[in-house]
Amino acid sequence: MDQYIMIYMPTADYSMVDRVLGEVAEQVTPSPKEIEKVDGVAKSVLEKIRGALEFSKFGPEIILGGSYARNTWLPLEADIDVFLRYPTNVTRKELEEDSYRISCKAFGEENLVIRYAEHPYTETYVDNVRVNVVPCYKVEIGNWMTAADRSPYHLKFVKENITREQTLDVRLLKKFLKSQGIYGAEIKVGGFSGYMCETLIYRYGSFKNLILNAAKWKPPIIITDKDKFDEVKEKFKGDKIIITDPVDYNRNLGKALTIKSLAKFVLACRSFLKKPTKEYFTVSGKKIKPKDLEDNILLENVIALLFEHEKMSADILWGMLYKTLNHFKKQFNENNFRVARTVAVSDEKSYSAYLFLFETKQVSEYETRIGPYIFDEENFEKFVTKNLDNSYILWVNEEGKICALKKRNISKAKKLLEEMLKDPIKYGASRKIAETLKNGKVYAGKEILEVEKDELWSGVIELLEPGEKKYFS
Amino acid sequence: MDQYIMIYMPTADYSMVDRVLGEVAEQVTPSPKEIEKVDGVAKSVLEKIRGALEFSKFGPEIILGGSYARNTWLPLEADIDVFLRYPTNVTRKELEEDSYRISCKAFGEENLVIRYAEHPYTETYVDNVRVNVVPCYKVEIGNWMTAADRSPYHLKFVKENITREQTLDVRLLKKFLKSQGIYGAEIKVGGFSGYMCETLIYRYGSFKNLILNAAKWKPPIIITDKDKFDEVKEKFKGDKIIITDPVDYNRNLGKALTIKSLAKFVLACRSFLKKPTKEYFTVSGKKIKPKDLEDNILLENVIALLFEHEKMSADILWGMLYKTLNHFKKQFNENNFRVARTVAVSDEKSYSAYLFLFETKQVSEYETRIGPYIFDEENFEKFVTKNLDNSYILWVNEEGKICALKKRNISKAKKLLEEMLKDPIKYGASRKIAETLKNGKVYAGKEILEVEKDELWSGVIELLEPGEKKYFS
Repeated sequence: MDQYIMIYMPTADYSMVDRVLGEVAEQVTPSPKEIEKVDGVAKSVLEKIRGALEFSKFGPEIILGGSYARNTWLPLEADIDVFLRYPTNVTRKELEEDSYRISCKAFGEENLVIRYAEHPYTETYVDNVRVNVVPCYKVEIGNWMTAADRSPYHLKFVKENITREQTLDVRLLKKFLKSQGIYGAEIKVGGFSGYMCETLIYRYGSFKNLILNAAKWKPPIIITDKDKFDEVKEKFKGDKIIITDPVDYNRNLGKALTIKSLAKFVLACRSFLKKPTKEYFTVSGKKIKPKDLEDNILLENVIALLFEHEKMSADILWGMLYKTLNHFKKQFNENNFRVARTVAVSDEKSYSAYLFLFETKQVSEYETRIGPYIFDEENFEKFVTKNLDNSYILWVNEEGKICALKKRNISKAKKLLEEMLKDPIKYGASRKIAETLKNGKVYAGKEILEVEKDELWSGVIELLEPGEKKYFS
Repeated sequence: MDQYIMIYMPTADYSMVDRVLGEVAEQVTPSPKEIEKVDGVAKSVLEKIRGALEFSKFGPEIILGGSYARNTWLPLEADIDVFLRYPTNVTRKELEEDSYRISCKAFGEENLVIRYAEHPYTETYVDNVRVNVVPCYKVEIGNWMTAADRSPYHLKFVKENITREQTLDVRLLKKFLKSQGIYGAEIKVGGFSGYMCETLIYRYGSFKNLILNAAKWKPPIIITDKDKFDEVKEKFKGDKIIITDPVDYNRNLGKALTIKSLAKFVLACRSFLKKPTKEYFTVSGKKIKPKDLEDNILLENVIALLFEHEKMSADILWGMLYKTLNHFKKQFNENNFRVARTVAVSDEKSYSAYLFLFETKQVSEYETRIGPYIFDEENFEKFVTKNLDNSYILWVNEEGKICALKKRNISKAKKLLEEMLKDPIKYGASRKIAETLKNGKVYAGKEILEVEKDELWSGVIELLEPGEKKYFS
């Protein structure tokens, strides 16, 4: 085992780090009582599935997976995955129908939610523990027919390579990432998946060694076997971070990690090593209230756009939210309303919202329009016709282009946003949410605090108090 | 003779154009009385120079040049050049000293001003007619030893190739260009030289045919002999307009023409053809008074910088003025004070001034500083140290860079300009005027009208009423 990044040998005194890790160890480890409970759930789940197998046409192999099976779950966050492994001669349609039938018989159709990753699977809750039933094919390594086919191999890898002691390190890492808001590979987060955590602990040996090294990471980061290094480097050229899947070197586990999440992780590692506190393992569960926000002087420069929509797959929703947000942000900047930061929030059920923090919500009353080269007669004439009557002055600039100084149509950010909502697609909105955006509502400054939406208020906190600052002071 | 630009054959009814040209013909032609007077001056100048030749060591050949000799001068604007042509075995120093001695003896040292082009020459006024005495070498075409050596050949070319009728066309062209502020090859103007005008009339045959064609010009414009076309095109690749000197195909007369002046010319041709008026041949001699400006609502967004300095060569002065102005403008834009237009003015003796028209003179109170990638630990630490205490928030952006939202130090354009004047070189000012800029005075809005400087007020008119607009309406 070797890494692109040199293994950094700790020489400084990290006793404070060890002390903090010791203190949070208990906090990230499920209690014997909870383990007993989840064991019970798992047992009952297995029994139910086995009982339902008689309704299957193909009798798939049953494998228990998820963070429960890997023993890397955080308290109150165990999830149990049941993989149904089908022979490769079963068609995709048969596989989907058969596994759904098994789930229905095991848990009752009314208790199931169908979820979609690459293919549909079911989700249910048993005694508050999330249980997913995921169909896949029983294939050799590398001959993947569906994305889920890798999972049983991942489970096997973790069980064989992550020691009992190291499961604590995986838990520390997960909690550390959660507290930074960068745990989870879904589009919303663009962070670290559970299996990525396990792989990183496997590669670096321990949480402490990982963060000592990660504090020095500089993209491109390549984490793989020594003998695979050159091949992997070439294969994933351009990726900022390459963490090969130990069961499939053709897959980069770092693919879904955004540069922002990566940066936040590296930063948190550095900051934690400098001043280790339990705060790095704390996820604030505090509900934000308007009174927490009303004294923030930046609030005056915040504009919120709230819009209601139908429920849809989270990854699809967040993909659209971010895409649309980026276009809107670009529009603001192009119109000189400088946007410092943005945040998107959603309850993932009925509404989403954008929050914009502006450097200025009001721009100059004049604007210069730079037109075509005067030599481009056709476009020049168009420009003059369009701008002659409503411009103060027209002139030829140093480049030979015709310019006009005009009264700016929209000098307030709120008004520009309302204008954009009239035709969201024109301004780059995703088609899927364009119609619902048209009915969006715009709130400025303290108005936002009158909208009773918890996610919205949390978003304002994220926008105005992003948390990075406290780690340096 | 052939041009890159197709000769456009007028098919439309240009009788209005002809009428206007007929009307202004008289205005651009010196009166018999004035011709008689300038003839007298020229005669006396020649006599004085001939009389002074006895003090010369080398007895140079005397050639009368300038717009007077070419018969292309505008009323009240005749200039008489006397070329003293020396044999090539005379050294440069001897040539300079000898020609200066001749000028002194002819006109009296106290009446001379020494001017510098490539080499020094003298200027004097005889009966209000400017007389330059310019030394040069008598060389074969192409074997130039000084830039002035071409002039006698230019004179010969014009005399042999510009008909008596065409001298009116040259005069019309000069006046047309003057009214647009684009006559003269000096840096201040970056426009058309007198010889360029003569060459253009020679190439296109008449003023009317020139403007019919120029109205369609699109860079790159190549005006040369048909058989020289490919060679010339290659030789001056990259130049926007190539007008070869008919006595030296290695020289592009269009070199000093700025794209802005070229654009203004093409535009004026088009506009004049659409709506021909005498205005295109009128140079406003009107003195601007504060009352002409005080009602202009844009004045509120103008800031003036006035600074006194010593007299220097006009081309050096204007070169510095423009260079410094561009840097200052860039600074404003980088600090989000959007500058719509700028104008530089100077009395070319004791003071110069910059005028800035802003879209906004006041920007937001906040600003975002985008710092280095957080992976660049050294620079990241520097950024944090510098910005931690005086930032509202610090965060990692989508690109993985550390950002800070700060109170803006300078939110008023006037204050930023005053800040720049404390260390002008840091902000790109030419060294030659940096010290004098430090004592510059800044005026905003109506304050400018209290500064009693004619050039400054004219500059404000140029800035706020650039003249292009009236040609389209």
